[in-house]
Amino acid sequence: MTAARKLLTLEQGFTMHRGGVLAAPTLAYETWGVLNAERDNAILIFTGLSPSAHASSSALDPSAGWWEDMIGSGLPLDTDRYFVICVNSLGSCFGSTGPASVNPDTGEVYRLSFPVLTLEDVADTAWEVVKHLGVDVLDSVVGCSMGGMTGLAFCARHPGKARAFVSISSATRALPFSIAVRSLQREMIRTDPNWDNGNYSKDSSPITGQRLARKLGMITYRSPQEWIQRFGRERMTAEGRPGDPFQIEFSVESYLESHALKFTGQFDPNCYLYLSHASDLFDLAEHGGSLEAGFKRMHLERVLVIGVTTDILFPVHQQRDLAAGFEAAGHGTRYVELECIRGHDSFLVDMDAFRPVMCSFFDSCA
Amino acid sequence: MTAARKLLTLEQGFTMHRGGVLAAPTLAYETWGVLNAERDNAILIFTGLSPSAHASSSALDPSAGWWEDMIGSGLPLDTDRYFVICVNSLGSCFGSTGPASVNPDTGEVYRLSFPVLTLEDVADTAWEVVKHLGVDVLDSVVGCSMGGMTGLAFCARHPGKARAFVSISSATRALPFSIAVRSLQREMIRTDPNWDNGNYSKDSSPITGQRLARKLGMITYRSPQEWIQRFGRERMTAEGRPGDPFQIEFSVESYLESHALKFTGQFDPNCYLYLSHASDLFDLAEHGGSLEAGFKRMHLERVLVIGVTTDILFPVHQQRDLAAGFEAAGHGTRYVELECIRGHDSFLVDMDAFRPVMCSFFDSCA
Repeated sequence: MTAARKLLTLEQGFTMHRGGVLAAPTLAYETWGVLNAERDNAILIFTGLSPSAHASSSALDPSAGWWEDMIGSGLPLDTDRYFVICVNSLGSCFGSTGPASVNPDTGEVYRLSFPVLTLEDVADTAWEVVKHLGVDVLDSVVGCSMGGMTGLAFCARHPGKARAFVSISSATRALPFSIAVRSLQREMIRTDPNWDNGNYSKDSSPITGQRLARKLGMITYRSPQEWIQRFGRERMTAEGRPGDPFQIEFSVESYLESHALKFTGQFDPNCYLYLSHASDLFDLAEHGGSLEAGFKRMHLERVLVIGVTTDILFPVHQQRDLAAGFEAAGHGTRYVELECIRGHDSFLVDMDAFRPVMCSFFDSCA
Repeated sequence: MTAARKLLTLEQGFTMHRGGVLAAPTLAYETWGVLNAERDNAILIFTGLSPSAHASSSALDPSAGWWEDMIGSGLPLDTDRYFVICVNSLGSCFGSTGPASVNPDTGEVYRLSFPVLTLEDVADTAWEVVKHLGVDVLDSVVGCSMGGMTGLAFCARHPGKARAFVSISSATRALPFSIAVRSLQREMIRTDPNWDNGNYSKDSSPITGQRLARKLGMITYRSPQEWIQRFGRERMTAEGRPGDPFQIEFSVESYLESHALKFTGQFDPNCYLYLSHASDLFDLAEHGGSLEAGFKRMHLERVLVIGVTTDILFPVHQQRDLAAGFEAAGHGTRYVELECIRGHDSFLVDMDAFRPVMCSFFDSCA
């Protein structure tokens, strides 16, 4: 925990969208820039599944954040003009309460006794943080990947509380391909004997299942086209593990291995299961009975939808549907389709493509 | 083992492409139709990774084969005119010698002592079967998926031994996306504690790893578009497994589960590892130093390349590359791109689309 990370505990408790109550959940968040006197310059960022609230560096925590090149002085989310807030999702494990936290009612770690988590819960608890910071109406909500769905939940449940919405590589709801991928990732963790029905210890956690799940994640986060350019059929130098004819041979296998090793140990397995499941559950159509009704619930002055043509997990036809849905509901919508080669992860790694689009929308980077 | 399945044992032994010798490997095969007096009406089918030699039913084995609607009287591979041969790949477990077979030199099951398997080995041993059947030159070789790569190996190593070649949803070599998928499938099996470095017993085999690998297989064998039509966000009725909030909920999860359960137990895990690895290893460019040289080695009068636009595993740009490669090397090439929705598996399940194309090429179905 760094000095940049602040905590808010909802002492009054929090009732979950699908039932169950958290006695006194904590939300971890970071902010950049200053709230102006009119309190109308705040931007709330909803993250994808795995990031923490540390979206960017600051004087209190100079380490690079996960969106370092997007937030700061002279950057698209310009901290000279905007007050930027990022909350670690409820259910995660970077300071916010989740399945890895102690249940104050029992003194035990929640594990699978944590109630079903939904993105509505993630949205509503983040809104508590925003209000706590003295903001009544947000300038904008920005949501990436899962965070885009959280943003839809926010806009449908708190109409008028944000004037603008930016959806990046997201969807109105998960399609069966994405559900299948995430379900299989969860099964990889759940079938690791070390998972032990969620009761693993720190010294014996399901890292094998996590490693497999992360590799499948990377396969769907990047694009086949990128890997053709980057790896082709390039091979590693043989390291000779006798007796195992299936050792890592191709560069792409080594790449997946190093990414997977970085991830395991960082992220709590039960938290991963809950957040992954929440992504499958979300459906904007549950807000009013149809997608159309869901979009109509929102009160937005301006919308930006960004999609990437090589995205496998949140394919570009879902981006077009999102933009069309906003447009049909009367929200002024700008749709930008980027031909980045790095698939779903492009918003994290292809800043040269995303920065101009975001600068234009936020009238920044002057 | 049925009466339709015939066996050929190569008593002289077989030297593997990447080293190692099999003392007296057996090849299982089936045939349909009759070899004519000129011995020029034989068609050899190379299978994908998992099928047996039982491609179609016959009087000796009336059970439906894996390509039942493609082979038979009045069907594209018309048994009134053609003598059709299908060989169970070397390295597989349906009668042909593979890692699950007993090594006659030791009396022990090969397991991981089986030499590195390549598709060149699969092609060469099948050619032994063809010669054994009295065929000097094949009318055609037909290869589906992995079998298409085996067919390329055959045509490059035995030029002039087939007059025509049909490649269905295959490739000149695996790209990194497919390598990543197969590598992860192998890792799922290898990290199942029951795998035990290949030394599992029949009662305790790595079925969990196999189930996961098959699910990832299905995700890449079908298409996201098909699943949108077929499942959408349809849910199963809750069966209530208390304590596990991650039980099967969506129809697509149930579909994967039933397919995975069907597969495990049928296919030997070590055989799967070897064949999967052989698919990654194959590269037509190794036959002459470049893809161009590989294509030029072949002597073919007629080529048919069929691709499916929704194929994720052997994407349509690889089909176009195949067709262009044949064409540039001077083989008369017909290229057909089918807009089937069922992805890579279309050649197994979308007969209405494939039959006319095959009939036209084989001048059958009159």
